[in-house]
Amino acid sequence: MSNLIDVAIIGAGPAGLSAAINVKTRGKTLRIFSNNENYLSRAERVDNHLGFYNVSGKEMMNQFTEHAKAMDVKVENGKAVNILPFDEYFMVNINGEIVESKKVILAMGTSKVKEIPGEARLLGSGVSYCATCDGMLYRNKTAVVWDQSHEAVEEANYLKSIGVNIIFVSKKQRNQELNPEIEFIEGSLDEVIGENKVEGALIGNKTIKTDAVFMLREAVAPTALIDGLETEDGFISVSRKMETNIKGIFAAGDCTGRPLQISKAVSEGLIAAQYAAKEIDNNQEDN
Amino acid sequence: MSNLIDVAIIGAGPAGLSAAINVKTRGKTLRIFSNNENYLSRAERVDNHLGFYNVSGKEMMNQFTEHAKAMDVKVENGKAVNILPFDEYFMVNINGEIVESKKVILAMGTSKVKEIPGEARLLGSGVSYCATCDGMLYRNKTAVVWDQSHEAVEEANYLKSIGVNIIFVSKKQRNQELNPEIEFIEGSLDEVIGENKVEGALIGNKTIKTDAVFMLREAVAPTALIDGLETEDGFISVSRKMETNIKGIFAAGDCTGRPLQISKAVSEGLIAAQYAAKEIDNNQEDN
Repeated sequence: MSNLIDVAIIGAGPAGLSAAINVKTRGKTLRIFSNNENYLSRAERVDNHLGFYNVSGKEMMNQFTEHAKAMDVKVENGKAVNILPFDEYFMVNINGEIVESKKVILAMGTSKVKEIPGEARLLGSGVSYCATCDGMLYRNKTAVVWDQSHEAVEEANYLKSIGVNIIFVSKKQRNQELNPEIEFIEGSLDEVIGENKVEGALIGNKTIKTDAVFMLREAVAPTALIDGLETEDGFISVSRKMETNIKGIFAAGDCTGRPLQISKAVSEGLIAAQYAAKEIDNNQEDN
Repeated sequence: MSNLIDVAIIGAGPAGLSAAINVKTRGKTLRIFSNNENYLSRAERVDNHLGFYNVSGKEMMNQFTEHAKAMDVKVENGKAVNILPFDEYFMVNINGEIVESKKVILAMGTSKVKEIPGEARLLGSGVSYCATCDGMLYRNKTAVVWDQSHEAVEEANYLKSIGVNIIFVSKKQRNQELNPEIEFIEGSLDEVIGENKVEGALIGNKTIKTDAVFMLREAVAPTALIDGLETEDGFISVSRKMETNIKGIFAAGDCTGRPLQISKAVSEGLIAAQYAAKEIDNNQEDN
């Protein structure tokens, strides 16, 4: 596999960037993906991360990004949709592009994602997090697009362009960039309905018929990303080496739990990177 | 107790300073003690702590110290010699001064201290780590001073001045500042001899008679500092909240184990501080 990389990093906040520079330091290849602005960037002032006094979150994040750039780390725009484990590596689906990687570091922060009834049960049976991945399955069929991110309009237009009959559901008013031929409902998606596959969607107190529901959120919840990932109180369970319960997948930063602090995120990114690199070295010795 | 403080921090490297600023942030009182130059200060170049690229250890340490100063943290010169737990607080012996503190954070880094045979067994029975603490016990008696830190000469002179008959043992040549009346042996202390109290010292292949051995090292090993502290492979055992096995005593940084990295030290200092502060708040609610 010519494109197999050593480490795929999901998220480019303090944990993801710290992981990236430490993967580099250990001489491994990596790709790092981010889909949204880091929360840190919006912090007014941070005083409790040693070495940074009286700086804004934006300034600190800039300094982090500059460090990464100086070490030739390029953050790519992309949302992780699914991670499939294979024998010796993982297939990481980034907006439909498959990235093959020996190890994965999850550093996506806390997601404010709240699952709705029916979502988890029907995931892969009509519920999808990725228009480019699953759109073709619903040509000449009906799909609800549930607006939860800045990309929802674009993806709805894409689905329409490939022949999907789209109903766009949003709490906001109709976006002018939404294809005028797309049906629009102002409201909130409350439940996905269906036994073994999606049959409908509950919007307010109205049920509409649909074959699919696209949830175009900023990020996919870790448990939806990887089958069987252990969590506790919504945070990914990790060892002191930042290993998750799935061998080869590490986690770092806010997604592993409290305290939700920069110092902790930076440290966990480093630790995850070091142990991921060590596992790769050990495997090479075995072979 | 008017002098009771909230948190005593032993060590002022990245872990200790991070703990200090976070204790401050939580509105608690603290004192922080350091006895030696931090190893970081001697690092030529550090690249893997996010936000600091291509800086020397000295520059980084300066930035850490400046941050602490800006938040009114004053590092005091002093070596922790002993920590005694009481009902609701600890008595921390700093070079003979007793500091009373509700919580203690150990952040003394890795000590390169290698115990010698007889040392642990005879600690408190003739083996001492502190001239000002125990000197008076050996007036008109003989004591070996084993030179292992920059303070050894000064402390030997002090012991001589209060009437202790001193034999100064050092691997280095006789220091010109050593009181000329002090006996000097160039060599290495290999064993402390005695059944229930110190009776002699083995230096090379010669045994000399002595009533006491003062080990004037840069730092005291954590296990010698506090009775019953659990360690593993020489590192202090901690929970994810940085609690040691002794309630009220936390540990952070290199002294808790690998990876011995700045990012980890900074994070663990923060976590120890936050949970120490939380314990104080909870106790106040109980009372």
